[in-house]
Amino acid sequence: MGPLVLHNYFRSSTSIRVRVALNLKGLDYAYVAHHLRLGEHRGEAYRAVNRQMLVPSLEIEGGTVLTQSLAIIEYLDEVCPEPPLLPAEATARARVRAISQAIACEIHPLNNLRVLNVLRARFGADDAMVGDWFRHWVAETFVPLEEMLAGDPATGTFCHGSRPSMADACLFAQVINNRRFDFDMIPYPTIRRIFEVCAAEPAFANAAPEKQPDAE
Amino acid sequence: MGPLVLHNYFRSSTSIRVRVALNLKGLDYAYVAHHLRLGEHRGEAYRAVNRQMLVPSLEIEGGTVLTQSLAIIEYLDEVCPEPPLLPAEATARARVRAISQAIACEIHPLNNLRVLNVLRARFGADDAMVGDWFRHWVAETFVPLEEMLAGDPATGTFCHGSRPSMADACLFAQVINNRRFDFDMIPYPTIRRIFEVCAAEPAFANAAPEKQPDAE
Repeated sequence: MGPLVLHNYFRSSTSIRVRVALNLKGLDYAYVAHHLRLGEHRGEAYRAVNRQMLVPSLEIEGGTVLTQSLAIIEYLDEVCPEPPLLPAEATARARVRAISQAIACEIHPLNNLRVLNVLRARFGADDAMVGDWFRHWVAETFVPLEEMLAGDPATGTFCHGSRPSMADACLFAQVINNRRFDFDMIPYPTIRRIFEVCAAEPAFANAAPEKQPDAE
Repeated sequence: MGPLVLHNYFRSSTSIRVRVALNLKGLDYAYVAHHLRLGEHRGEAYRAVNRQMLVPSLEIEGGTVLTQSLAIIEYLDEVCPEPPLLPAEATARARVRAISQAIACEIHPLNNLRVLNVLRARFGADDAMVGDWFRHWVAETFVPLEEMLAGDPATGTFCHGSRPSMADACLFAQVINNRRFDFDMIPYPTIRRIFEVCAAEPAFANAAPEKQPDAE
């Protein structure tokens, strides 16, 4: 692949997912930080890159910009198939995508910074209410996710079998994100176990927020 | 393919997406309705099908249950490739997935029934506040989505070229969903145009809420 530029933010969990995927593929990339809390992604410069003004975006050869973290990961898996981030068989692929989307569609969209800001501004939510909201939506998905992982023989060392997949990138990023709101991980032994396995892998560990150049 | 059972709800926009995909593929399926407003999906019977207790779920041959609408659509496209719901080339596939995920990850998760119920219960939101919340999140994505579609030569009759894709299934379902909260579509001429093209196709028209057996 040609040169890659990742527009992202150290703490953004969608950014973590893509960094994990790039690391698993062994792909180098230029790191461009956009400080979300300072609103750096809301300016015209980044808007020209990504109309949604969200991170991450991945610029590939020729200036094409890819957006949406799972779409970026699927792209990387298609153009750079080894090691695979999705299994080969169709129902197994559907399982990995469903676990990924359970996190990407049911947890993260409700808990990102712009949503929490609207809760504060429009509904007068204080820190305690914002924290309760965050933890509520994580638990709504983590309870069934724990059961889906613990009760399915397809679960292995990782979410699916013995190799890391897109689902692990999502799980890893979400568990890190949960720390910001003191989410209690005790009821989720399988999720915790998989997180620890991931955290011991350099591709995951090097994607963590504290390892990034814009870390605070 | 063997017999298919779709667990869904006439009004659910994620259900609409999957019905569009099944219709485009020409696949027959048994329709099992779960009345979301009556909480029918929160009982033990459906929990045994889908631990997340969300619709849609697709039961395939052998009793395997697929969850998450976009994962289901990708599965259908893999096992039943004609007509394709994703283009062939990798950056084009990434574009269709990104449009789909812009809707599936940035709009729908914030606006589904369970979230609106939490806004009412925890934040004392009344109908006006719930409506404002709904329209806010649609506009946050529809403004950039309109620009992405209008400004890209890859946009054709449909979101991508001259054939309906997963992105059109998502767009169609979201525009239908918007009607529940009187969302003003005037500022979005390209989205409106694509919606009308879709609505004229039987595969889409027959997936609309009012055509379903559980329609009210």
